[in-house]
Amino acid sequence: MPILIPIDDPDDPRIAPYRDVRERDLVGREGRFIAEGAVVVRSLVAATGHRALSLLIADKRADALAPLLARLPADTPVYTAGQALLDRVVGFPLHRGILALGEQAPGPSADALLAAMPARARVVMLFGIGNHDNLGGIFRNAAAFGADGVILDSGCCDPFYRKALRVSVGATLLVPTARLAAGEDPLALLDAHGFEAVALSPSGGETLARLVPPRRAALLFGSEGPGLPPALLARARSVRIPMAGDFDSLNVATTSGIVLHHCASDAPEERP
Amino acid sequence: MPILIPIDDPDDPRIAPYRDVRERDLVGREGRFIAEGAVVVRSLVAATGHRALSLLIADKRADALAPLLARLPADTPVYTAGQALLDRVVGFPLHRGILALGEQAPGPSADALLAAMPARARVVMLFGIGNHDNLGGIFRNAAAFGADGVILDSGCCDPFYRKALRVSVGATLLVPTARLAAGEDPLALLDAHGFEAVALSPSGGETLARLVPPRRAALLFGSEGPGLPPALLARARSVRIPMAGDFDSLNVATTSGIVLHHCASDAPEERP
Repeated sequence: MPILIPIDDPDDPRIAPYRDVRERDLVGREGRFIAEGAVVVRSLVAATGHRALSLLIADKRADALAPLLARLPADTPVYTAGQALLDRVVGFPLHRGILALGEQAPGPSADALLAAMPARARVVMLFGIGNHDNLGGIFRNAAAFGADGVILDSGCCDPFYRKALRVSVGATLLVPTARLAAGEDPLALLDAHGFEAVALSPSGGETLARLVPPRRAALLFGSEGPGLPPALLARARSVRIPMAGDFDSLNVATTSGIVLHHCASDAPEERP
Repeated sequence: MPILIPIDDPDDPRIAPYRDVRERDLVGREGRFIAEGAVVVRSLVAATGHRALSLLIADKRADALAPLLARLPADTPVYTAGQALLDRVVGFPLHRGILALGEQAPGPSADALLAAMPARARVVMLFGIGNHDNLGGIFRNAAAFGADGVILDSGCCDPFYRKALRVSVGATLLVPTARLAAGEDPLALLDAHGFEAVALSPSGGETLARLVPPRRAALLFGSEGPGLPPALLARARSVRIPMAGDFDSLNVATTSGIVLHHCASDAPEERP
């Protein structure tokens, strides 16, 4: 159980990483991130690789958080402060009363991530997802349905951004993740590892309900609006989710949930 | 085609309803609402019952919006202003460049809404959904999958709140909606109209993938966290979405998308 370290000076250098959190979100964070709220911090403690460098909590929450704190390494500094000092340092009312400064584990390459997957696997591959809510939502679904990993192209935003982490309810810290290298051909990479690419698109050639998921399935999603790059769509098996009338619009995180549920339900142990 | 009315005084009383939009969101709006962005305003123009009392647009967007404006009744006032005046009146940078002041049609009772539905129908029934993002997301899914209506209990927030409307991409204005009356028994009401209640719960008795949707199906969702009221769950057929390992968490809007997709896919024309 780490020792609690009371802080009574807002300028104490030990809590400098927590100062003006919103502004810091936007600048180079060099592998560090802020986890906000007990649920996300719990994922950080449970994560493999990523680790908590320190915590900052509201002193009134120390008792309620004791079981979580007990799971931290004994040498992790846990700073405590009154709510007023906390709000002032962080720069907004920190209702959740708990932040952690995290350090990312170096991610594997997409190639190494795919190579490590089991014979029956599902990987989510994302192109140009620039909205943190959507990215966080997709990670949450990936964790909920046991996807084996998420691969991001260079057009995706950062899943370790505070809001994406929060919307993912910590899933970002639990699901193995890799970035495509510059110039890497995603379909050639998938093919090399025996994955079949299934590209989601409103103009897809078959409906999701009829899809029998490949044993090694890569599920490809593009951003709302532009969707997947046409050059990529032209080379992949494409699947659509039929919609009613002229209301042709599903949120991409919701779409990922529908697709992952379909693939998970089609596993032999779930088939009616 | 309505005539454009230039505004050059931020205190012009004709645009008073657009002043400090964020603050007005929170006070009694008496059947009026603000639609933000071309997509939502397009739904307002297409809606049955609800109507636009006026529009306020950035003058630089007038040409691009002309096809939308042409679909308004000729006597709808369309105020135009420079971006700076617009931002000042509204109280935040109005990147979307278009707002409409809308007036809600009086909603039907839940009883009347159910009575008007076809023999094969799906209604979404919501309990305690207090988050505008989630409520908007559920409406978006209801529209995308052609649900016949949405019924809200008294614990749900307002789907006509600006943010809920925006997240719904206007679906709130298109999907028939009713509120349960105080003390009304939702299950007795459904039963009286021949609807079978299917209650979503992590502890549900059967899995969604095995559910053959009833011809008249009511799909019941509760808020994240507490879920559906236990007294209601105890009396309804309950269904769960299996999740991986110990990550037992799906967003309620995503859940509604998964369930509505399953029910839509199971319609005879979609069955493999």
